[in-house]
Amino acid sequence: MNLLKDRAKKIEPASIAVAEAAQQRLDMLTKPQGSLGVLETCAKQYVAARGDLFAKIADPVILTFAGDHGVAEEGVSAFPQEVTPQMVANFANGGAAINVLSKHAGAKLKVIDVGVACDIIPFLPVNPEAAVLHHKVALGTANIAREAAMTIDDAEKALNVGIHVVEDEISAGSTLIGTGDMGIANTTPSAALYSAFLGISPVDIAGRGTGIDDTRLTHKIKIIQQALDLHKEIIKGGNPLEILAAVGGFEIAGICGAIIGAAANRVPIVIDGFISGAAAITAMQFNANVKDYCFFSHLSAEAGHINAMKALGIKPILDLNLRLGEGTGAALAFNLIEAGVKIMHEMATFKDAGVSEE
Amino acid sequence: MNLLKDRAKKIEPASIAVAEAAQQRLDMLTKPQGSLGVLETCAKQYVAARGDLFAKIADPVILTFAGDHGVAEEGVSAFPQEVTPQMVANFANGGAAINVLSKHAGAKLKVIDVGVACDIIPFLPVNPEAAVLHHKVALGTANIAREAAMTIDDAEKALNVGIHVVEDEISAGSTLIGTGDMGIANTTPSAALYSAFLGISPVDIAGRGTGIDDTRLTHKIKIIQQALDLHKEIIKGGNPLEILAAVGGFEIAGICGAIIGAAANRVPIVIDGFISGAAAITAMQFNANVKDYCFFSHLSAEAGHINAMKALGIKPILDLNLRLGEGTGAALAFNLIEAGVKIMHEMATFKDAGVSEE
Repeated sequence: MNLLKDRAKKIEPASIAVAEAAQQRLDMLTKPQGSLGVLETCAKQYVAARGDLFAKIADPVILTFAGDHGVAEEGVSAFPQEVTPQMVANFANGGAAINVLSKHAGAKLKVIDVGVACDIIPFLPVNPEAAVLHHKVALGTANIAREAAMTIDDAEKALNVGIHVVEDEISAGSTLIGTGDMGIANTTPSAALYSAFLGISPVDIAGRGTGIDDTRLTHKIKIIQQALDLHKEIIKGGNPLEILAAVGGFEIAGICGAIIGAAANRVPIVIDGFISGAAAITAMQFNANVKDYCFFSHLSAEAGHINAMKALGIKPILDLNLRLGEGTGAALAFNLIEAGVKIMHEMATFKDAGVSEE
Repeated sequence: MNLLKDRAKKIEPASIAVAEAAQQRLDMLTKPQGSLGVLETCAKQYVAARGDLFAKIADPVILTFAGDHGVAEEGVSAFPQEVTPQMVANFANGGAAINVLSKHAGAKLKVIDVGVACDIIPFLPVNPEAAVLHHKVALGTANIAREAAMTIDDAEKALNVGIHVVEDEISAGSTLIGTGDMGIANTTPSAALYSAFLGISPVDIAGRGTGIDDTRLTHKIKIIQQALDLHKEIIKGGNPLEILAAVGGFEIAGICGAIIGAAANRVPIVIDGFISGAAAITAMQFNANVKDYCFFSHLSAEAGHINAMKALGIKPILDLNLRLGEGTGAALAFNLIEAGVKIMHEMATFKDAGVSEE
């Protein structure tokens, strides 16, 4: 069996027994029952995913996957494609938002080139602040509005990159992974994936990305619809890998692989915003149990994200009007998930503290 | 001039010039303009409050004020009054949620007895994990549904405790303060203060506190209305100190003093939830500029809090379904305010990073 199929098959539901034991523990602590809200649900989800009531968080890491998109040639983004390698260099130099926020979260940052449309090595410093891993599958995708983004082989290669990278971090001791993306124009393929898998129409899922105006937004919606029409047979009858190859992207596939790999190893994974969310719903098509391992970090300001979250029945942890990507929302949510897990392990019970109950 | 009047008079608006310079700086950083949402507004508010574009956050501290309430005898709370000193002992022993969360935030915790209804010293350990400061003004308030909670002198004493305690922390180097409360039945006087100062009716501001049922909630609303009726002349014509004395509480007055003291010293203060919010609106009556120094940390699950926030035109930073108090929401918000300030100071600009703009 190949790597992808093996890992997808391996993903088990989170432990119901551990979730129940966690709830019992939380209800014994010196606070009104349920009064720590989302911190309590985070704690419960974390230990149930790990299958261990006593699980703690170790060595959190943000994995930021980078790739380019042929559909950028349709003028769907406010920034030119050259920004992708420039931003990868900015990550390597420590100057981007994700550098500041992963450091603030006490998390390692790894940047993975899965499909940037040029050789990025000349852009990079000799002693990078964040490690850049070179796993380029191709020089960007083809234009999804005119052909398939990737061959099926290349899409699987990119998924496998994600699996390998996340399993390396897990082997090194990480028990909390965050996802991130960099790729000019990548809200367009992400929107196409939400449409394909959740049945949300382009007008309800497309947003302004890095900041396009009304005219370009209308054009972007048309381009997404064109891609959906072109690939409609695959979307109707294909498997998740075929659909991802048709309308996805390399960094989205990398993130999707990381999610599958983390879930297969019972390691919770924190989903950033709009792009990572598209990778997460793709991962759920490979095995629906994936959902048990996903923390949705924040509600993005990208217009369609709220519709996608509603379709999934999920209220993300944060709502900070963020729309940057890179893993910034995931890095911010680490702190709250860690807070929840510490609450469960470190607070005194009513009995131990000698505090009267209701 | 007395301490309270002096500090209230001293509070200036935040610096508009620094806010503008902060916006310029934020817009030069390598991200689409505005794409870090609330992190950017937090950064801007913080440096404008400090009056210094280069201000950083140092030595954050949570101040948790404790007091008891005569109105507890009306059966408005799910827990008995003996829980107040028991929880102060739990804070001292390091077992409460605020111990875990202040430590997680890298913040110091100080607990201040302004009006617990018994001698708490026998409850406390010899070597406490969190310092307990003894500034008891009286053994709890009188029942607001039958008489004034405090004499005006006592209310002012409790306000001055807050000013002294916060100024000690500021002198010691703290540039970010968080507020917290402990006091069985304290959602009742807090609701009365929201009603008195914002004109919200008891039915729209009262909530279940630590977890009362429908019958007790109806009773609680009746008790709040009874207090408002009893003190209606003071509420209509009195000054903020008189109104606070009539329907407030010692820990609420302590928090109010801390807010006034922080604002007078241009130190931003993070308001916890429902109780601290009542103290914050009280502080704003002494000087409306107080608002510039307040970060509202979270939207409480206490039912009326959303109506109070709407009346103030504020969207709190977090919405985590918390309803514990103690300063727990404030401690969680520290991380996000710090993240915003670091973003402003540590990210590279488009020019420095050689990244192309729109």
